[in-house]
Amino acid sequence: MSAALRAAVALAERLFDELRARTTDEPGITRAAYGEGEEFAHAVLKRTARELELAEAVDAAGNLYLTMVGEEPDLPGWIIGSHIDSVPHGGNFDGAAGVLAGIAVAAALKAEGRRLARNLTIMVIRAEESTWFPVSYLGSRAAFGILPATALETCRADTGLTLRAHMEALGFRPDAVAAGEAWLDPARIHGFIELHIEQGPVLEREDAPIGLVTGIAGSFRYRKARCLGSYGHSGAVPRAYRQDAVVAFAEFVAAMEQVWDGLERDGQRATITFGEVGTDPAQHAFSKVPGEVGFCLDVRTESAACLERIHAELLQAVAVIEQRRGVRFDLGERTGSSAAVLDAALRGRLASSADQLGIRAIEMPSGAGHDTSVFANKGVPAALVFVRNQNGSHNPEEAMRMEDFATAVELIHRCVVSETAR
Amino acid sequence: MSAALRAAVALAERLFDELRARTTDEPGITRAAYGEGEEFAHAVLKRTARELELAEAVDAAGNLYLTMVGEEPDLPGWIIGSHIDSVPHGGNFDGAAGVLAGIAVAAALKAEGRRLARNLTIMVIRAEESTWFPVSYLGSRAAFGILPATALETCRADTGLTLRAHMEALGFRPDAVAAGEAWLDPARIHGFIELHIEQGPVLEREDAPIGLVTGIAGSFRYRKARCLGSYGHSGAVPRAYRQDAVVAFAEFVAAMEQVWDGLERDGQRATITFGEVGTDPAQHAFSKVPGEVGFCLDVRTESAACLERIHAELLQAVAVIEQRRGVRFDLGERTGSSAAVLDAALRGRLASSADQLGIRAIEMPSGAGHDTSVFANKGVPAALVFVRNQNGSHNPEEAMRMEDFATAVELIHRCVVSETAR
Repeated sequence: MSAALRAAVALAERLFDELRARTTDEPGITRAAYGEGEEFAHAVLKRTARELELAEAVDAAGNLYLTMVGEEPDLPGWIIGSHIDSVPHGGNFDGAAGVLAGIAVAAALKAEGRRLARNLTIMVIRAEESTWFPVSYLGSRAAFGILPATALETCRADTGLTLRAHMEALGFRPDAVAAGEAWLDPARIHGFIELHIEQGPVLEREDAPIGLVTGIAGSFRYRKARCLGSYGHSGAVPRAYRQDAVVAFAEFVAAMEQVWDGLERDGQRATITFGEVGTDPAQHAFSKVPGEVGFCLDVRTESAACLERIHAELLQAVAVIEQRRGVRFDLGERTGSSAAVLDAALRGRLASSADQLGIRAIEMPSGAGHDTSVFANKGVPAALVFVRNQNGSHNPEEAMRMEDFATAVELIHRCVVSETAR
Repeated sequence: MSAALRAAVALAERLFDELRARTTDEPGITRAAYGEGEEFAHAVLKRTARELELAEAVDAAGNLYLTMVGEEPDLPGWIIGSHIDSVPHGGNFDGAAGVLAGIAVAAALKAEGRRLARNLTIMVIRAEESTWFPVSYLGSRAAFGILPATALETCRADTGLTLRAHMEALGFRPDAVAAGEAWLDPARIHGFIELHIEQGPVLEREDAPIGLVTGIAGSFRYRKARCLGSYGHSGAVPRAYRQDAVVAFAEFVAAMEQVWDGLERDGQRATITFGEVGTDPAQHAFSKVPGEVGFCLDVRTESAACLERIHAELLQAVAVIEQRRGVRFDLGERTGSSAAVLDAALRGRLASSADQLGIRAIEMPSGAGHDTSVFANKGVPAALVFVRNQNGSHNPEEAMRMEDFATAVELIHRCVVSETAR
């Protein structure tokens, strides 16, 4: 690896450390979308952009664009980017790694004194972690002018404020977002590359530092679902008279496990997760039959048909359990995202670069959603580069080896340099 | 019903209304043990005792005794009583009905100008609802000097303060409680009668206003149990790598349902309840595989052998699920209470009184625990009189018809009058 790349990775490492130090929220780190942590990260990136002499721009939704202007700026440009927010008490690399990879590529090019033909833009995407505002790909959709206007009013963070209020508080332009003002034009983008930690154990187990993603799963979510039964005295209500919400919920979980068994038998890849579950603290007690359970359900799969199959089987299971247990399920609003197939040509170019560099890179799907999905569905040649990581993600123990990150930076650097040198 | 009894029930009804008005905590009412609501109720009862010219005494734990002195006060006396605390957001009758029944009997006797041979004491028992301090029959055990001294230090209310601190703040004598000072002597009690709402639907369905309880279930509880797995990204961790605490917990609920099926096949009566369940708000997210679930388990049955059978099958289920799901169960401390068989002679006397009055009273067990259990296990002839109630208990919708309460008061009045008139 060249001295310029080594220095660029060292810069990224210092920035990782600075972000961690200032957004620690034990356990882990917290960078709330349109909140304190994300704002701090933007300030760090703007300062770094000035050091690297990158041009700075901000769109109506607050996405940040840091551009190294090419020799032929009228050509469609490269975008390297990812999000900089995190889940609450998450890890330091989920999102930030993709942004700092872009910074490192730009820093390496600057140190090399190399000017690309095309513009190279590092995009710092807002609010990808939908734990903050319950909508998928908020920032990247807003950048293309396709975020539904209703999201501005209906999405509230745990601050209690709407997305609109958060945008206004930071000086952005929610009215332009609502009006569908597009900052990005697919025709003006040569390629979008997102580096992201894998968030799962596959690369670690396959002993490969890099994954090249073939497609991104779509999803449906019920974030505010409830199972409603009746409260009663835990000793005094005989079994036949119970409408026990916890027992009914447990049956629902078991039913969805059976749905998953069926998918596996049919060779369908999916995930089914009940990430949050809870009885109502205002009413529950150890000596009460539980009358209500709230829960979240997150279902993901690469195929739209498979997603609808799961949803249909879910509704069947709900109907059976409602009948048997005398409870009612109130699933609430269905949200979710579409699946995306990623560009084979750009992936092929990354695979060639990996070959040239002697990097083991395997093809794999992504069960997790990423902003890359929005670019792909807008017709932009889009690539998602996974970096091997340890201990999963969305948790404080999330990890990534800096040498694996360096490998990925080298790979992306090679890809943009070799293309431009056509 | 005599005019004296009608007036006495009307007094009780006014007191119910006063308690409800002053301890409302929407939804429902809250009378915290050794807290504001219980204290307010004690003040109301002391004022009423002065109006009825009852002698007043308080023991080391703060139990209140209001006595109508008999013609032969050296004879063992009657005690009519129950608790006056409630669960959070509970109903107005659970507990209070038993205390106000005693007040009504005393008021009727006073209005009739009738003096009993024996003392008649209304006992206002502290802290029966173990949602406040996690120990069963706190007040009645303290009255007999058999509350474990450790409970004073280890039991904390949601105030964060120990039981000792709560007792001291109200001017009671926790040292005497710890030393096992007994206020009540079983040999000095002729009989203990507790009136209580049924808390279940049996009397309502059987169309009987009164139940005469044959025995009270014992229990085991795990109030701070946890199922521990691993957090992970909901999209990125394939099924084989998951240690999903919610799925494992759901399997545990299903396993305990199967245990219950087996008990029913063998004709064993029991209840199994998971009243509180929740993932950890500090770590959970809709997009995370859940790494931890906290829960409460409450198991009750009339037979000690059956209780141990359920516990053994529970441990087997835990071991199987730990193995299969790669999770760990941390059940925490086991607490609970012993079952009690109630006095057949006193129950027979109540049944005769019911016959004489033309009241339909059926025999039934109690799945719920009651202070009567402590009196019975101390060798006191003890009776538990259930009043038909609607909508269960431990919930804001709990109900009781005042005419059913009046029927129960008339029954108890007849029982103590006929006995003394022997």
